[in-house]
Amino acid sequence: MIADKLCEKIRSKKNPCIVGLDPEWEKLPDCYKHLSRPEGILCWAFDIIDAVSDIVPAVKPQMAFYEVYGAEGVSVFEKIVKYAHKKDLLVVDDSKRGDVGNTSRAYAFAHLSKDGPINSDFLTVSPFLGSDSLIPFLEEAKENDKGLFVLVRTSNPGSVEIQNAVNSNGEEISLLLSRFVKSEGQGFIGKMGYSSIGAVVGATFPKEAKELRNVMKNNFFLVPGYGAQGGTAENVINCFNEDGLGALISSSRAITYKQEDVPTYDGTRNMYLEIVRTQSKNMQKDVYSALKSAYENISY
Amino acid sequence: MIADKLCEKIRSKKNPCIVGLDPEWEKLPDCYKHLSRPEGILCWAFDIIDAVSDIVPAVKPQMAFYEVYGAEGVSVFEKIVKYAHKKDLLVVDDSKRGDVGNTSRAYAFAHLSKDGPINSDFLTVSPFLGSDSLIPFLEEAKENDKGLFVLVRTSNPGSVEIQNAVNSNGEEISLLLSRFVKSEGQGFIGKMGYSSIGAVVGATFPKEAKELRNVMKNNFFLVPGYGAQGGTAENVINCFNEDGLGALISSSRAITYKQEDVPTYDGTRNMYLEIVRTQSKNMQKDVYSALKSAYENISY
Repeated sequence: MIADKLCEKIRSKKNPCIVGLDPEWEKLPDCYKHLSRPEGILCWAFDIIDAVSDIVPAVKPQMAFYEVYGAEGVSVFEKIVKYAHKKDLLVVDDSKRGDVGNTSRAYAFAHLSKDGPINSDFLTVSPFLGSDSLIPFLEEAKENDKGLFVLVRTSNPGSVEIQNAVNSNGEEISLLLSRFVKSEGQGFIGKMGYSSIGAVVGATFPKEAKELRNVMKNNFFLVPGYGAQGGTAENVINCFNEDGLGALISSSRAITYKQEDVPTYDGTRNMYLEIVRTQSKNMQKDVYSALKSAYENISY
Repeated sequence: MIADKLCEKIRSKKNPCIVGLDPEWEKLPDCYKHLSRPEGILCWAFDIIDAVSDIVPAVKPQMAFYEVYGAEGVSVFEKIVKYAHKKDLLVVDDSKRGDVGNTSRAYAFAHLSKDGPINSDFLTVSPFLGSDSLIPFLEEAKENDKGLFVLVRTSNPGSVEIQNAVNSNGEEISLLLSRFVKSEGQGFIGKMGYSSIGAVVGATFPKEAKELRNVMKNNFFLVPGYGAQGGTAENVINCFNEDGLGALISSSRAITYKQEDVPTYDGTRNMYLEIVRTQSKNMQKDVYSALKSAYENISY
């Protein structure tokens, strides 16, 4: 089960933190800018993967920053997934897809099928169209031993507008979705006790994270918003179980775009990648110590 | 304003119906299957565009059915948009994108910018993350004179689960989104009185369509679910204003995959495309007569 592989990687690297691969051209170091945009981004992403492959369990490329270059960008995305796999990293494909039944089926095949063009390990999916729109993703995940993260509580301020609304049974949407993730995830629980079906829960809502954790005890949370969006190590603690598992903390900008904050940064690729490694290690330290102080018996 | 172009095309062709380009390989006629999948699909889509270009105001390619072939499929999508423009058709890009701020910005550029790789005229967007996630799409639309269709009430049965929930002010989500579309669309109203910012409202909820029409008087509805999903001409009448404008009725399977229902179908490309033309004209007739009987003074 892919959830077991995720747990093993987190435990062996003592790290529940992953690196977001969000290539915004303006923020990329100059050392990649002599190349064309898709080529520069490919080179940058491969470099980041090399730099963090012994530190993190997974990387999270955000599709929008590749799709912005159309087919060329999607081709880069496909290559990044392959390269990350070669470097023994799992890939969380952050594409937030979701549509009516047979359309979701096409998206699910594209992103999760082992015979498909992308072949990611986990995919983020948007539940706005309702539970029937998510079934094809669950089926594709089942067939290919892949995982999902259903959007439950996103990290942006506007997320409350829809996610805090209440249905006719008096249930908040985020709670309703949590129950869906819990129940649909039952058939995906591996030998480590965790399901391959998880939820996106933003780092910026720590109180709510605790409540959602109580519902989804066996599910992983994908937690964006660490660092740049204001989430701190203390904020994300509630996303974990007491064994130190059950959450993947993601950061992109705070890892990959910090070079300009380093006074000695000389503009070279080597030094840039050294900064990326340091930032990634610092994030591991911050989250790991916060976990150690919060819970006595973390399992790694 | 792109909304004006849309109104003009509907009026000159006396047709508010558009054709969905949803290439499902199994359903494609055999005459395209000697080609590789992306090539066969490209050829099929160009043929459909040729066949309906004098009948419909726009085509609606569904991204999932291209993304299923990865970068190759996205490249086909890009070419279809260009070809449709060459044939003087508008393109409704049904990709249902939506993410946090700077990520939505990348999607918006990809799909709507005149300098971007896709350059569609209208894009469907998913509001699950809240209104802040839609702002970059509105900004890109403004800058490039493009339009949006915000998911408000989708045609699938599960749509009620989230779209009928109620926020803390007692407003139903679909109503809340309608108000958003109405107010944000104000700055996009053209000389024909219609806004380039519209809403997706499924053909399968005619009662609700009437209520939503009352809120969004100046906005176009993109109405999927006609034909194959069970929507009829009578069902979609409520999506229009009395001038016969304000709605785009979309059908894909009922236009492009009906050949097997025609007893004399001989498997040739010519006859297949003749059937597509006939289906497209029949849909125009059905919707246009229903409109004529429902409203005395339609403006075309």
